[in-house]
Amino acid sequence: MAEKTPITVAYGDGIGPEIMSATLHIITEAGANIEIEPIEVGEKVYLRGISAGIEPSAWESLRRTQVFLKAPITTPQGGGYKSLNVTTRTTFGLYANVRPCVAYYPFIDTKHPNMDVVIIRENEEDTYTGIEYRQTHDMMESLKLISRPGSERIVRYAFEYARSNNRKKVTCFMKDNIMKLTDGLFHKVFDEIAKEYPDIQNESWIVDIGAAKLADTPESFDVVVMPNLYGDILSDVAAQIAGSVGLAGSANIGEQCAMFEAIHGSAPRRAGQNLANPSGLLLGAVLMLVHINQPDVATRVHNAWLKTIEDGIHTYDIYTEGVSKQKVGTKEFADAVVARL
Amino acid sequence: MAEKTPITVAYGDGIGPEIMSATLHIITEAGANIEIEPIEVGEKVYLRGISAGIEPSAWESLRRTQVFLKAPITTPQGGGYKSLNVTTRTTFGLYANVRPCVAYYPFIDTKHPNMDVVIIRENEEDTYTGIEYRQTHDMMESLKLISRPGSERIVRYAFEYARSNNRKKVTCFMKDNIMKLTDGLFHKVFDEIAKEYPDIQNESWIVDIGAAKLADTPESFDVVVMPNLYGDILSDVAAQIAGSVGLAGSANIGEQCAMFEAIHGSAPRRAGQNLANPSGLLLGAVLMLVHINQPDVATRVHNAWLKTIEDGIHTYDIYTEGVSKQKVGTKEFADAVVARL
Ligand SMILES: CC(C)[C@H](C(=O)O)[C@@H](O)C(=O)O
Ligand SMILES: CC(C)[C@H](C(=O)O)[C@@H](O)C(=O)O
Repeated sequence: MAEKTPITVAYGDGIGPEIMSATLHIITEAGANIEIEPIEVGEKVYLRGISAGIEPSAWESLRRTQVFLKAPITTPQGGGYKSLNVTTRTTFGLYANVRPCVAYYPFIDTKHPNMDVVIIRENEEDTYTGIEYRQTHDMMESLKLISRPGSERIVRYAFEYARSNNRKKVTCFMKDNIMKLTDGLFHKVFDEIAKEYPDIQNESWIVDIGAAKLADTPESFDVVVMPNLYGDILSDVAAQIAGSVGLAGSANIGEQCAMFEAIHGSAPRRAGQNLANPSGLLLGAVLMLVHINQPDVATRVHNAWLKTIEDGIHTYDIYTEGVSKQKVGTKEFADAVVARL
Repeated sequence: MAEKTPITVAYGDGIGPEIMSATLHIITEAGANIEIEPIEVGEKVYLRGISAGIEPSAWESLRRTQVFLKAPITTPQGGGYKSLNVTTRTTFGLYANVRPCVAYYPFIDTKHPNMDVVIIRENEEDTYTGIEYRQTHDMMESLKLISRPGSERIVRYAFEYARSNNRKKVTCFMKDNIMKLTDGLFHKVFDEIAKEYPDIQNESWIVDIGAAKLADTPESFDVVVMPNLYGDILSDVAAQIAGSVGLAGSANIGEQCAMFEAIHGSAPRRAGQNLANPSGLLLGAVLMLVHINQPDVATRVHNAWLKTIEDGIHTYDIYTEGVSKQKVGTKEFADAVVARL
């Protein structure tokens, strides 16, 4: 038997530990050949006075395994705390954030039954660089950065993704009628690189009307690539109208390292009640299994999850009268998936 | 009879002239007591080498009338042209952009029949200040500015709007988990001013999940206030899912001056074919009539428009089989509204 792939795991805060336990239970039962290295990140670490929410020893594990499965964390209110997500993304150069937003109609209620969109979000630049100034008490500035190498990397990733996943079209969202230099560069790079992929259709929309189309007729999109902040907002929109932000997993991909997560937050008010839906993190773990070259396990998990959803076994957040059959807790949902492996 | 109120009118580019003629025809027939001062702005002026797309003489008219009804314009491709919208907004301090997004179900097809949201968008700051740098060929920067006076002004406007329009709740969208200084200031100001309006509910959402809720369950929102760029994107989203961006008018309000427009663009490919829907601009003109203190004319126009829509007399862009009754052109639509005054 092949050697186990070491992966770094953070159980996170709020509902994090529950959905992580459920996820690890399912993928282990499915035969994932992994060795789990737990690290502590998030609220407790922040409150110990560590501004990035992660200990030096945890960095060491991440540098070694290069694979990170991360539950949502809680960043304490107030100044001085840096987003762990953003720190991890930039420290390891996780430049591509891949967010599939798929409808599971008729098993999950949605107004967009045929939706199957992949948002590819640039993951390091834009206003996420964390460069902010206080000019006076009354005047604040944030810097938005867009670079050519950063734009080339993400646009190329989007076209390569489209090609290898048998997708037909890549759409670019940006706002170069206002941000002529920054978004203008992104658009220009998109047009240049699109020419290298004559087998794949391409189109661009100013983000306002593009977002309106996405929210109204998501079936007309396939792969959509965009700068960081638009991607943050519109991947939540796309995931939610496909069914629920609770059903979307996400892959943060770099040259060496990769991080996998749910796109939703730590929902502290739902914590510890066996209520939370582990689907987002589980689908993140499916993307991870493909990444670490265990595609058969990934398929097994994905099919069992799909069968559970199709059998109407739903957690409270996606439970819909007349559509769902059985309302279950986190653990029972995980058991139902395991039973269908 | 009272003296006529002078208003400055720009016929714009693309479909602009057609929808402006239709709009002026309707409001004149309805008894609007106005004196029209036409100015030339947009494509032709840009191409004469005037980077803001507006002549000095036109500024003079605007300064005098303080009321501007503007059709969409086309900004030529390429560098060097400044957005006329943005120039007008900042020159006259039009700090509040008010965009009602209303469903007209069952007369206009929508997935959100009960939607009635007003987006109040800050209209001068954010990345719209036009401050961009080219550091190197490969590295571009835009500056996002948020000020306390600017934030106070727009948040107070939103609460005052809610109070005088009998609205129950004001929601704030921002992203202060990442932009702690800029969006943090906006959020802080919102919380402070909300306390002065105990009769109106208030709530805040991080813009990613807020946008997801808005796109999925817009019925749960009432008045929503936000910084400029989020407001640009999400007002298009809200207008489109309510029925169509083609049905939304917008008011840009300053201390002295105000500008009224449709939220859609100049659609050059539809120009000159008697195809365009004048509804967005007409509803902008309705907001203008209220602003210049001719509320009875405003109501008359609005009711006649509503009756036309309810009678199923629709332009191509909103024509839906089984919902609409008659497909008409721009002129015939205007005549139908006039017949219902
Ligand atoms: C938690 C937050 C910093 C993060 C982001 O803005 O990127 C989240 O919203 C996401 O989309 O992963
Ligand atoms: C034309 C463009 C500059 C403008 C904006 O971005 O504000 C438009 O999209 C709008 O929403 O009025």
